[in-house]
Amino acid sequence: MYFEKQVLRIPGPVPIPPSVNLAMSKPMIGHRSPEMKELINRIQPGLKNVFGTKEDVLILAASGTAALETAAVNLCQAGDEVLVAVTGAFGERFADICDTFGFQTHRLEVNWGDAVEPGQVRDMLTKHRGIKAVFFTYCETSTGVLNPIKELAETVKAHSDALVIADGVSCIGGVEANLDHWDVDLYVTGSQKAMMLPPGLSFVAASEKAWKAIESNTAPRFYLDLKKYRKKLEDRSTPFTPAVSLLFGLEEILKLMHTEGLPNIFSRHRLMRDMTRAAFKALEIPLLAGDEHASPTVTAVRPEHADAEEIRSTLSKIFNLRVAGGPKHLKGKIFRIGHLGYCTPLDVLEYIAAAEVAFKQTGAAIELGNGVRAAQELLIQATEKETK
Amino acid sequence: MYFEKQVLRIPGPVPIPPSVNLAMSKPMIGHRSPEMKELINRIQPGLKNVFGTKEDVLILAASGTAALETAAVNLCQAGDEVLVAVTGAFGERFADICDTFGFQTHRLEVNWGDAVEPGQVRDMLTKHRGIKAVFFTYCETSTGVLNPIKELAETVKAHSDALVIADGVSCIGGVEANLDHWDVDLYVTGSQKAMMLPPGLSFVAASEKAWKAIESNTAPRFYLDLKKYRKKLEDRSTPFTPAVSLLFGLEEILKLMHTEGLPNIFSRHRLMRDMTRAAFKALEIPLLAGDEHASPTVTAVRPEHADAEEIRSTLSKIFNLRVAGGPKHLKGKIFRIGHLGYCTPLDVLEYIAAAEVAFKQTGAAIELGNGVRAAQELLIQATEKETK
Repeated sequence: MYFEKQVLRIPGPVPIPPSVNLAMSKPMIGHRSPEMKELINRIQPGLKNVFGTKEDVLILAASGTAALETAAVNLCQAGDEVLVAVTGAFGERFADICDTFGFQTHRLEVNWGDAVEPGQVRDMLTKHRGIKAVFFTYCETSTGVLNPIKELAETVKAHSDALVIADGVSCIGGVEANLDHWDVDLYVTGSQKAMMLPPGLSFVAASEKAWKAIESNTAPRFYLDLKKYRKKLEDRSTPFTPAVSLLFGLEEILKLMHTEGLPNIFSRHRLMRDMTRAAFKALEIPLLAGDEHASPTVTAVRPEHADAEEIRSTLSKIFNLRVAGGPKHLKGKIFRIGHLGYCTPLDVLEYIAAAEVAFKQTGAAIELGNGVRAAQELLIQATEKETK
Repeated sequence: MYFEKQVLRIPGPVPIPPSVNLAMSKPMIGHRSPEMKELINRIQPGLKNVFGTKEDVLILAASGTAALETAAVNLCQAGDEVLVAVTGAFGERFADICDTFGFQTHRLEVNWGDAVEPGQVRDMLTKHRGIKAVFFTYCETSTGVLNPIKELAETVKAHSDALVIADGVSCIGGVEANLDHWDVDLYVTGSQKAMMLPPGLSFVAASEKAWKAIESNTAPRFYLDLKKYRKKLEDRSTPFTPAVSLLFGLEEILKLMHTEGLPNIFSRHRLMRDMTRAAFKALEIPLLAGDEHASPTVTAVRPEHADAEEIRSTLSKIFNLRVAGGPKHLKGKIFRIGHLGYCTPLDVLEYIAAAEVAFKQTGAAIELGNGVRAAQELLIQATEKETK
């Protein structure tokens, strides 16, 4: 263990870029000052870009779960029939929220590690004609599955009039999220994942159709009332005290994202996913999710001949490298690596080399260096493609 | 290239631990305030420990070169006969300083990549009986050689009355430097290497014998006059304005070093050296320095079938990973990796994986993963030894 040099590779919070930490240390400003208005104004274009929309994006001083609740309580009310696709722990959370507010919640349960299939959604919608809203988890953080949100939203629109809500907490910023051209009506995400900020902010982007539902919804809500946020945002203000320093950081993040360019960010995340998967395959260590729906932001590894918790604690003990464990029934069976946000292919080579050591230390019959080599080979291919 | 995430692996400046950056951001204090006295008082014990001495250690607001000059102008004066062991670019610098101040400088020139041998020093001292001071480079940053300073100092004492000066700029903090129990009379180092601070401070530790020479030396010096620093330090003050925020950082560095423990720091550096060397040997890429005198802080790699500058630029282009080039006649022939200060064995695995990719990209016939494996194997051995 080497003093306080921790390497954080959980699927959020992620390491913060140094220039963002600096930006967050700027002197505090009044939240009703002209400077705050200007800051909000400077932030909006970059944020709209992330969500692929011309609409303003709402910013809440609250965590990702608050954003999930925001989606639910603004679009639906007690008694409404809703569908929640449950592909893991965060799908369950979405369903719990719906239950809490008295919605008639249909759960489309999917094996953890699999993605929802459009056919399953079609079947549910055909069976339950009154469904008003469908809640999807875009990236299921607990399993490393990226649900095919674009196709799923199309399916919903083809078979119903229901609203489509996407929980993009652990992927938006690292993968495409298009409000204006996809059939999703409302996206939410948090600040501490691919957006590379500390936790504490969440973002909501809503379509015209969503806004109609929000406006006519009489369900009680106060802090999470999107109408209040939208109204104040028109005047470049906020209904409640905003998390000022996180907004300083957000401005810097959006500058960094603009400099790298969204298409490059997305391809970097795909490359990190592919390198990670190639490495574990070369080591013959199974992965939880299949290739087709593997998330570019988080990978769940399912060791067969080793205890996942032992791998985690070995990584922590030898390298002070932190990965996440498995949720609920997957505890001890999987560990999850976050490769999102402020993370590069070089970081992937690093954690693969570390994982090899950890597996070897726990007695796994792996060949040191084989995982690294597989990841290096993919990286070299990608580099050559780029320079062509 | 992934935005501004640079990985700095030159032999100093090194990355700054985050808690040190935080400490350096503390509110400014007056340099003649009681708080400054208390700060200096808190710093001294840790600094004495680094130099293995009960004597106060002097702190200059100046770079390492100023500390070299300080050693020269405080111990010697025009006309004095001195010996400089030149094992690379920094030995040359020491000799240039001696020339500048009119010393009679004898150069003991050693092949760049080799260490000075005690026998060579003995021969020079036997030949030139009037030598008053011998200047050594402890770690020759330009070649990655650690000169055997303890043995060299013993040799000087066995064959003369000369003072022994050690330039420890690129190693002290990462390797042992003992003032009270070794025959070295004066050590100097800088802040930006194994001391993990930004550049801007240098440190001088002097023996009783050195102080006698300093006190009686009439050579003119003002800012670099050690007598002034010593006198003020007795009162926990400084003769000139100190670099206040760097001292805030130094206090934090010394806390980190205390927490890890000097013996652990030294063995970490040795392990990083051994991992690095094992990796390049496995890849059949030659190293400039031999095993016996390889520095725990910096390794010079001498590729046979690749241009060292091309490797450097490839590392920079693909990974934004920076290593140093070769100085003077070694330019294009070697590149140098700093593995010192805020650097861990995990960082070594990272740069080895990156170096393999860079060599492969430039057409070298290496086997990807082989260097990483050799480094991993050493790390596993060291980890097993530690837990036994």
